Amino acid sequence: MRRADRATSENEAKEILQAGEYGILSTVSVDGQPYGVPVSYAYTDDVLYFHCAVEGHKLDNLNGNNRVSFCVVGQTQLLPDKFATNYESVIVFGKACEVRETEKHQGLLELLKKYSPEFLEKGRHYIENTGGQARVYKIMIESMTGKARRK
Amino acid sequence: MRRADRATSENEAKEILQAGEYGILSTVSVDGQPYGVPVSYAYTDDVLYFHCAVEGHKLDNLNGNNRVSFCVVGQTQLLPDKFATNYESVIVFGKACEVRETEKHQGLLELLKKYSPEFLEKGRHYIENTGGQARVYKIMIESMTGKARRK
Repeated sequence: MRRADRATSENEAKEILQAGEYGILSTVSVDGQPYGVPVSYAYTDDVLYFHCAVEGHKLDNLNGNNRVSFCVVGQTQLLPDKFATNYESVIVFGKACEVRETEKHQGLLELLKKYSPEFLEKGRHYIENTGGQARVYKIMIESMTGKARRK
Repeated sequence: MRRADRATSENEAKEILQAGEYGILSTVSVDGQPYGVPVSYAYTDDVLYFHCAVEGHKLDNLNGNNRVSFCVVGQTQLLPDKFATNYESVIVFGKACEVRETEKHQGLLELLKKYSPEFLEKGRHYIENTGGQARVYKIMIESMTGKARRK
């Protein structure tokens, strides 16, 4: 990070990751075209889980190069008179790999607990019925940088 | 796009771009590491302008490979009982290049008009005084895809 004065603590970065509603997953194609796409995710035990359809652009990219970047933006506030913005964000670097069977189920449960905590029972049935139509990936986090401007 | 039923019209995609508060710029390093970072931007005449400091990770990436992806997420609404999210988003593909002199000034003015429309005069002075500390890039849009789920 260029501006060390804007670095958050590691704990704060984790809190921003915990609280984020979605993140942007950045991958790259084998011929060097970056691709950033919003995904729902769950962050637990220093791993990020996300799910996706059984085929698509990001899976093609991950098959060729599993290095990813994952960006979550938290609170923001425009400051028009200062020509600036207050914000908080985290950028994660790591590798994404597909998880299957027990860990796939675990990943789907983590997503369920994050997004639908009041519908766990219904959600378990939903996973049983539709989980076969999804793939679950985990991002093994290699580094994480939180950044904030609050003035 | 895999799910054609979720494609927005081109006009709607442009409206999401116009309205977005920030976007995630995805670039890639020469050794294949993707990097997604939030940036303020202005969208006008089918070009996206963003500015940044005179050095940094994304500039290093752009110097090696100027292909980018740019993602803007609009309105979102979690639907916990449906295990789904309503959302609207746009993904742009294109090439980023630095602009200088007249066009650099134009890019900074577009950012000013978007983020500080009530402080244009003060903003012009701000640009005169600090513009030298910034670089301005434009993304020449090659393709754009809007996507939405609203149910």
